[in-house]
Amino acid sequence: MNSFGRKFRVHIFGESHGVSVGVTIDGCPAGVLLLAEDFNADLQRRKAGGAGTTPRIEEDSPKILSGVFNDKTTGAPVTILFENNNIKSADYESLQATPRPGHADFVLHKKFNGYNDYRGGGHSSGRLTLALVAAGVVAKKILQGITISAGLVEAGGNKNIEEAINNAIKQQDSIGGIVECKTSGLPVGLGEPFFDSLESLIGHAVFSIPAIKGIEFGSGFMAAKMMGSQHNDAIIDAKGTTATNNAGGINGGISNGNDLMFRVAVKPTSSTPKVQQTWNNQTQSVQSFQIKGRHDLCIALRVPVVIEAVTAMVLADFQLLELFKTQ
Amino acid sequence: MNSFGRKFRVHIFGESHGVSVGVTIDGCPAGVLLLAEDFNADLQRRKAGGAGTTPRIEEDSPKILSGVFNDKTTGAPVTILFENNNIKSADYESLQATPRPGHADFVLHKKFNGYNDYRGGGHSSGRLTLALVAAGVVAKKILQGITISAGLVEAGGNKNIEEAINNAIKQQDSIGGIVECKTSGLPVGLGEPFFDSLESLIGHAVFSIPAIKGIEFGSGFMAAKMMGSQHNDAIIDAKGTTATNNAGGINGGISNGNDLMFRVAVKPTSSTPKVQQTWNNQTQSVQSFQIKGRHDLCIALRVPVVIEAVTAMVLADFQLLELFKTQ
Amino acid sequence: MNSFGRKFRVHIFGESHGVSVGVTIDGCPAGVLLLAEDFNADLQRRKAGGAGTTPRIEEDSPKILSGVFNDKTTGAPVTILFENNNIKSADYESLQATPRPGHADFVLHKKFNGYNDYRGGGHSSGRLTLALVAAGVVAKKILQGITISAGLVEAGGNKNIEEAINNAIKQQDSIGGIVECKTSGLPVGLGEPFFDSLESLIGHAVFSIPAIKGIEFGSGFMAAKMMGSQHNDAIIDAKGTTATNNAGGINGGISNGNDLMFRVAVKPTSSTPKVQQTWNNQTQSVQSFQIKGRHDLCIALRVPVVIEAVTAMVLADFQLLELFKTQ
Amino acid sequence: MNSFGRKFRVHIFGESHGVSVGVTIDGCPAGVLLLAEDFNADLQRRKAGGAGTTPRIEEDSPKILSGVFNDKTTGAPVTILFENNNIKSADYESLQATPRPGHADFVLHKKFNGYNDYRGGGHSSGRLTLALVAAGVVAKKILQGITISAGLVEAGGNKNIEEAINNAIKQQDSIGGIVECKTSGLPVGLGEPFFDSLESLIGHAVFSIPAIKGIEFGSGFMAAKMMGSQHNDAIIDAKGTTATNNAGGINGGISNGNDLMFRVAVKPTSSTPKVQQTWNNQTQSVQSFQIKGRHDLCIALRVPVVIEAVTAMVLADFQLLELFKTQ
Repeated sequence: MNSFGRKFRVHIFGESHGVSVGVTIDGCPAGVLLLAEDFNADLQRRKAGGAGTTPRIEEDSPKILSGVFNDKTTGAPVTILFENNNIKSADYESLQATPRPGHADFVLHKKFNGYNDYRGGGHSSGRLTLALVAAGVVAKKILQGITISAGLVEAGGNKNIEEAINNAIKQQDSIGGIVECKTSGLPVGLGEPFFDSLESLIGHAVFSIPAIKGIEFGSGFMAAKMMGSQHNDAIIDAKGTTATNNAGGINGGISNGNDLMFRVAVKPTSSTPKVQQTWNNQTQSVQSFQIKGRHDLCIALRVPVVIEAVTAMVLADFQLLELFKTQ
Repeated sequence: MNSFGRKFRVHIFGESHGVSVGVTIDGCPAGVLLLAEDFNADLQRRKAGGAGTTPRIEEDSPKILSGVFNDKTTGAPVTILFENNNIKSADYESLQATPRPGHADFVLHKKFNGYNDYRGGGHSSGRLTLALVAAGVVAKKILQGITISAGLVEAGGNKNIEEAINNAIKQQDSIGGIVECKTSGLPVGLGEPFFDSLESLIGHAVFSIPAIKGIEFGSGFMAAKMMGSQHNDAIIDAKGTTATNNAGGINGGISNGNDLMFRVAVKPTSSTPKVQQTWNNQTQSVQSFQIKGRHDLCIALRVPVVIEAVTAMVLADFQLLELFKTQ
Repeated sequence: MNSFGRKFRVHIFGESHGVSVGVTIDGCPAGVLLLAEDFNADLQRRKAGGAGTTPRIEEDSPKILSGVFNDKTTGAPVTILFENNNIKSADYESLQATPRPGHADFVLHKKFNGYNDYRGGGHSSGRLTLALVAAGVVAKKILQGITISAGLVEAGGNKNIEEAINNAIKQQDSIGGIVECKTSGLPVGLGEPFFDSLESLIGHAVFSIPAIKGIEFGSGFMAAKMMGSQHNDAIIDAKGTTATNNAGGINGGISNGNDLMFRVAVKPTSSTPKVQQTWNNQTQSVQSFQIKGRHDLCIALRVPVVIEAVTAMVLADFQLLELFKTQ
Repeated sequence: MNSFGRKFRVHIFGESHGVSVGVTIDGCPAGVLLLAEDFNADLQRRKAGGAGTTPRIEEDSPKILSGVFNDKTTGAPVTILFENNNIKSADYESLQATPRPGHADFVLHKKFNGYNDYRGGGHSSGRLTLALVAAGVVAKKILQGITISAGLVEAGGNKNIEEAINNAIKQQDSIGGIVECKTSGLPVGLGEPFFDSLESLIGHAVFSIPAIKGIEFGSGFMAAKMMGSQHNDAIIDAKGTTATNNAGGINGGISNGNDLMFRVAVKPTSSTPKVQQTWNNQTQSVQSFQIKGRHDLCIALRVPVVIEAVTAMVLADFQLLELFKTQ
């Protein structure tokens, strides 16, 4: 399923080397001001360009195909399309026999009986995060008074990001990183006791992003080493403010009004320039090979804005659903 | 929403100190042998009783209310009910004014305008995991040739579980732990490229379980510190076997046929016997207080079978959905 | 799927001759007063007893298993259970070889590979409408200021219902009927332009009821014979009141504030006392046979309260979803 | 919600006088041959042009934006876009104050607080059926061996369609009609006992189409006047063939292998050329007015291919879901 959300529903489509990448948002309230330029800031943050990012540069100009009239959302589905222009698919033809380690080549071939678009990862490409970022821009507009802010706090095990990137470039190898996301201004009460807990929905959305391999809320894995008397956050006023925030702003799956805090682990980019081993389906043997194409050395650099986007999608969905719990 | 799954759909209901806890499974195939005694082993594993677990002992005897005829599932919804017998609600009446730190008392009161059943956590209680375990028993029956096995690998930061429990008892404080889950025998191809990635659905289900604050697949958070050339798992045969398993059996959100591996962080039980601080709504001031009631010192001891259950639910759902991807 | 609704979600389970029939409602707001006796009036209307109805009399006493505390809904799932007591299953054993015409015996056997509970229709029995009526009672409580009223306006082609029933008894044959449903007090704006039009959702819910074979809104099939100038309802005030109501209160799939009007066709009870022809799977030939068991001659007599119930479910769901369309 | 389906999921978007109309299909199996020209036949049938149809002629050329690679579906979402070229929106500006009877102008304005795109009905326009027809073309490709055929059997109450159209042109008024749909080759077993009965899902989908006000399966409303002994279809062989087909191919909500038969009532086009009465929001009084713009006199002429399309969507969805009911 390429859909997410219960009331603010996001559907994505497209391929890395196909005609386009796009997103349809169903359930967006009417009357939200939405201009093409509203997407600029977040698209720019996601964009390649700096040290450690891919040399493939796309214009990423959003076309609003539906759901907006006189610059405001109409209540009908909002579709935003991005055309692909800078495509060099020949890079991938030679890799058909040798599935790239770390990539989905092998599983996609099996799952779709060889019919998948294998060029640049096809529909599974990180390029699809463009659609997520666009949906996030719309979701953020609904979340008035709520601030979501994610940043890369560690790369390749190093808290000095720039040094880590330079080191990766020097070693000609890819690296991963840790992204931390903080949301302030949330009301108490978003999330459900079991299957639709706030952690469940954020976890669901975050693991949709390629390269994410872990998530922890509040003290997360550290909590497993703490005593209850250390970990519990003492409530210190009638609004539910807590003295500490080991819970990351969530109790029993429900937002408690303190900052929502989580961290995610981003694995190193699978497309490392280093020589690797993989199975060759033609020769039926393991062989050495080297990845070609244009890739990021540290995809984690581009992940924060995507994390913000999916967080905004989850929170907008909850907010629209939670409005009237009681009579 | 108290529902989970797309084809194998699980709905849970009930309260800790209400009449009962139950589960309805819709979409279970017909013809699956299902006897009341099939639930015994997993219910026993979940049950309280050992050192570090609650003195509240329930019989936990499953009543199959629907969907089974002549000991086999019929294709109609399967409902399993557990009556609550060992209830001592008076324990909770005095706590109405003072929301317990770490618990959902405060957020539930706000979210449901004071109408929530506050006795023992009500619908948010860990007692509801009984329903999850029951659903897991049914799901495991569908997963033929697939083995799911979870265990507590660390408690209170200590790999010697017994020592950790004894230490907690001695200190009269609660502790958390790390649960590791390994699934063998999975076919290649379960999971979808984006929103319904295998990590997304397992993450969603796992975070439904109370007290879980983190999840990582394969090398997880360690991956963020590795180089791509280290992290990538070399493919070494035509079946997709990999030399290492840093990916935890998942590439691009899809199972790759290697063992599915993940670890979860369980926070220390919120109900620590230690004196704590919290807000008193009557006196409008912070006060000291101590938890009463019957609780686990290390809830993580009882989590593994629940982790297995929700993993089985996710995998059964995928398996029933994935059968015919191509024509 | 035995679930219906997006926010007010109803899950039903049970069998005609099994242990019980029940319903779980997820998404019901907290704070709704709900007592066992609130179900009496509608359950009584559904109940057998008069001329033309089955001699099987069940007590139909609702047990509220979850979701209610201190007589009010808590926001957690509400489960209501009805035990089956008056069961005479031996009636059905002899019919295994000869699928009853008009009934689902043949299709259920095929669909579920012979594992279905065939006693009294099993999960497909009209007895499951008990669960629908119970859900309807809860839904009606949410719909304040809205009145739903359905009645049998024709039986066996005759507008004099009593005469029609007496005639059926005399002829020892079953009959059908037409049920008309009128809902007053609806706000403008329930329903979505396409897939979730008000007609779509009501049609979906109504066709869930056994024996319904047609539905028409407003002038319905008569509309197909009218001119546009006759059929269009002139708008005569700022509230949208129309001079006529050929549209049945719906334009473009959305409620227009006038009475919501629809009619449904109920087929004659399949279990007619008359001798019928069917295939015998043992003798592999067509044979004559006669239905045994306890049945209604005119099931349409008991349908109106079920129609009201599913209408209330649809409207409650829309109302909870529609609250905040714009910012 | 602008989405329909559980496994074969259709999402539509666009406006009558906006940039485009489109559809995304998620869950389409991989390996289905799909060329732009495959859409021609059905798009042509839907198209305007004959007597009684609108003079607005659009090219309706489908652009496949995603999900197809080397002319075959890939298993990723399939998006098909139609650009709008022949737009004359000035026609609608003058109607803002006077909601057109029979149209959704009034309810859309209220529901979306005036933010809806009112030009030509905006997202609620019959032009969106273009997206449904496109989805139907894909669905039909999945339904191998199954034939769906719908036709107009009555217009304006007259079985001679041509005469009815000429009469409407002469009278300068719009008319409705009855469309009959027959599906042959269905397997036994599509449909679920209650909420997802075959009638429920087809009813849901059919009422998504603008102007549909009634649906009946098999003998439908006539069944309400029949005796059970007349209405029941005698089963005459082991495959479940019935001597008659009053059930329209469905028992207990499940396909029985006989032809699936249903009829729908299409109301007369709301845009009649005749003078009508409506409320004027500026003058706050009822006034006479006449519809401008380019419209069909008998929209029912264009409905059959849309009925086929939504029927195919429902059946494809069921077929993909039903494959493995038993183990």
